[in-house]
Amino acid sequence: MKFDHTNEHLDEEMVIIQANIDDMNPEWSPFVTDKLLEMGANDVYWIPIIMKKGRPGLMLNVLIHANLLEKAETVIFRETTTLGLRYMRAACHRLGRGFEKVTTPWGDITVKTGYHRGELVQFAPEFADCERAAKANNVPLQAVYEAARRQFGTEKEK
Amino acid sequence: MKFDHTNEHLDEEMVIIQANIDDMNPEWSPFVTDKLLEMGANDVYWIPIIMKKGRPGLMLNVLIHANLLEKAETVIFRETTTLGLRYMRAACHRLGRGFEKVTTPWGDITVKTGYHRGELVQFAPEFADCERAAKANNVPLQAVYEAARRQFGTEKEK
Amino acid sequence: MKFDHTNEHLDEEMVIIQANIDDMNPEWSPFVTDKLLEMGANDVYWIPIIMKKGRPGLMLNVLIHANLLEKAETVIFRETTTLGLRYMRAACHRLGRGFEKVTTPWGDITVKTGYHRGELVQFAPEFADCERAAKANNVPLQAVYEAARRQFGTEKEK
Amino acid sequence: MKFDHTNEHLDEEMVIIQANIDDMNPEWSPFVTDKLLEMGANDVYWIPIIMKKGRPGLMLNVLIHANLLEKAETVIFRETTTLGLRYMRAACHRLGRGFEKVTTPWGDITVKTGYHRGELVQFAPEFADCERAAKANNVPLQAVYEAARRQFGTEKEK
Amino acid sequence: MKFDHTNEHLDEEMVIIQANIDDMNPEWSPFVTDKLLEMGANDVYWIPIIMKKGRPGLMLNVLIHANLLEKAETVIFRETTTLGLRYMRAACHRLGRGFEKVTTPWGDITVKTGYHRGELVQFAPEFADCERAAKANNVPLQAVYEAARRQFGTEKEK
Amino acid sequence: MKFDHTNEHLDEEMVIIQANIDDMNPEWSPFVTDKLLEMGANDVYWIPIIMKKGRPGLMLNVLIHANLLEKAETVIFRETTTLGLRYMRAACHRLGRGFEKVTTPWGDITVKTGYHRGELVQFAPEFADCERAAKANNVPLQAVYEAARRQFGTEKEK
Repeated sequence: MKFDHTNEHLDEEMVIIQANIDDMNPEWSPFVTDKLLEMGANDVYWIPIIMKKGRPGLMLNVLIHANLLEKAETVIFRETTTLGLRYMRAACHRLGRGFEKVTTPWGDITVKTGYHRGELVQFAPEFADCERAAKANNVPLQAVYEAARRQFGTEKEK
Repeated sequence: MKFDHTNEHLDEEMVIIQANIDDMNPEWSPFVTDKLLEMGANDVYWIPIIMKKGRPGLMLNVLIHANLLEKAETVIFRETTTLGLRYMRAACHRLGRGFEKVTTPWGDITVKTGYHRGELVQFAPEFADCERAAKANNVPLQAVYEAARRQFGTEKEK
Repeated sequence: MKFDHTNEHLDEEMVIIQANIDDMNPEWSPFVTDKLLEMGANDVYWIPIIMKKGRPGLMLNVLIHANLLEKAETVIFRETTTLGLRYMRAACHRLGRGFEKVTTPWGDITVKTGYHRGELVQFAPEFADCERAAKANNVPLQAVYEAARRQFGTEKEK
Repeated sequence: MKFDHTNEHLDEEMVIIQANIDDMNPEWSPFVTDKLLEMGANDVYWIPIIMKKGRPGLMLNVLIHANLLEKAETVIFRETTTLGLRYMRAACHRLGRGFEKVTTPWGDITVKTGYHRGELVQFAPEFADCERAAKANNVPLQAVYEAARRQFGTEKEK
Repeated sequence: MKFDHTNEHLDEEMVIIQANIDDMNPEWSPFVTDKLLEMGANDVYWIPIIMKKGRPGLMLNVLIHANLLEKAETVIFRETTTLGLRYMRAACHRLGRGFEKVTTPWGDITVKTGYHRGELVQFAPEFADCERAAKANNVPLQAVYEAARRQFGTEKEK
Repeated sequence: MKFDHTNEHLDEEMVIIQANIDDMNPEWSPFVTDKLLEMGANDVYWIPIIMKKGRPGLMLNVLIHANLLEKAETVIFRETTTLGLRYMRAACHRLGRGFEKVTTPWGDITVKTGYHRGELVQFAPEFADCERAAKANNVPLQAVYEAARRQFGTEKEK
């Protein structure tokens, strides 16, 4: 269950847990999300849906390793108002990941990279780094983000 | 404040009331909708939104004549969890409306018509009539709906 | 296929049926929902999606026991405009359920309870009961709902 | 992998690929959709979701034959910003399809038909035909669409 | 421009600023929200929309006092990718607000109250208090929230 | 009514037209959008909403100069199924706009710029240019987009 995210890999032992919720205070949602991420979920997201009797509901989705299914179910039953949930098997394909540092006028920023079959297909400045630099230097977030992307791209071109 | 919906008209004394709600049991929404329609709202609808702290909320929208603003506000404050609401002036342009009957294999169906500057621009079978006929005759709803539209269209062509 | 919902259980013979619909009169959706619930679906819900050519569509979702798959498909093909549907296997985990009565100033209200491994994890006043009491006594729905929750909670504390 | 869409059939070798994306320029979405449809996807659609940290994201969904899974993954990794994706097995049930021509005041329009167990359950004018006729004749799209449906229905009634 | 939120009041000098955004990294949204709230916006929310060419976009909405309009515009132009924005006049009706403390098994919780014409119409435990208590005591958030509501309700009944 | 978009300006004579639609074939939406853009609308967008009786509807929004209001209304009444619409006054603040060319390995790309009080606050490669270059050279769209942004940014830094 411990994956080396450095290398591209396929994890076939994943489950997607879903629960349709129409009677929970929506204010609680981010708390539920954090709780599930802390206990090991790979991803947690909410989808606005329309439920029976025209009720606007939210579908909770949790992507998690099958080994953690039971623990996640207990969190969902304790922290939401649902009386039931469902899950399906899924396989996850994750790119090889790397981290590189680039220098911008507002300090160093980490850039996350994604490799598919050895080829660099993605790169993105770490959001938290950009946010910190933008706040510290009182510049627009997009300026920092842009500078980091440009710096990374320029170095790769060489 | 009493309009003759038979004739196309402009009503410039309308307001749109809005309230962003992130801490109400969504199950209550259809009840709130009905309550506001009963007291005279022209339309009530809900929009899924994303509020501060990443909370999935619902924006309640009420289209209503300015004369009823105060009454609607009281309903909203009593029946939802909001601590505030806002409103904007709006003008409503409504088509002239008529009702005609058509005969289908499953009984008579009322067709609602809309006229813009004297020209027929819209027609639609009344949903409640189609639903009743579909249930009574155990045929698909779309068969009834389709037959009513076809019948109306054929008569107009003549 | 007959489950005793009193006890917490896992049902591994469920399917989720999905159909993306971009050419149906959305007015028909609640009718389709009711039709599918009547024939035995455990849940029916709609998700707003964006389809090819930028069309705003709706994805119909039906959670149903595998034994009823074929019957549900026929309903979907007759009552919607879709030319195809898909389904996936799913497992449902349902809490043990109970019903208790509480007394409020506006009459008795049933409270639905949910048990996970014998522990009470959920309770919620039955919406229909609250709605009836609110209408009959002309009090806000949330007042009734609140009173029922409070009463149940106070009794459990003892 | 080559299906005769003329006949109703079940294809059990389908997959649904999903990727949650919160850091891609949404402007690119229709391009990604087209790219995936061109390479053989049966359907591509996007669902607005709420991701961790309250980020409004989009979930890309691709319905595709399992034989094309690998090719689709490469497109997704190259054309979107995702670092991972997941997929689930699904079965597709497709109606038998036919095409018939009807004559309207604005030219011939193809009507697509759907057959479930030999019974006609769906018919819909081809959108592209209606659009072309509406533009060429400067009439409302709904007039063309309506006329084509009516013509088809009237012929079937005989 | 300084309101005493203790008393119910109407503020007619509000504006709603809107910008449709289809080419911004959605990851930035919560940052933009916080930036606008810090500078004095009363509310900031995002609505998923479908823009021209089938692009899934986000509409930024900012509810703010007219005096701060210009400052908010500058933040929006610097921190998002929009080339334009629009605004409309709106009036805000805010309930009288109070804060009371209740005691739960997990510590004191502040309950926010809302008064409409002198009558208590709303009360809700402060989310941050409940979250803190739930984390500190390792109990479900809904247990804390529920206890606080019940305690407040029981005291009011006396 | 003719604006020089080169310079930042405020247009106070705008209107937002809205129509809630729950009985139109959603397939028609992009056609309606195009029709309204062709006749001079500044923006057209659709919002998924939940209407009375739990119907999933779409709210059509048209941002347009007040001079064109009447013409737009006629298009909406002819091309959609709505029996009414509403509009509100709005003011539009548009940045000064410029266009510059940058050279990428896959040809020249136009970059649109936005100026707020003389300061460059936005720049974005023209989507159509990037799409054309990506298709012609069979490279990922994001590679072209990225290169254009980087090139523009590098030139501005000098």
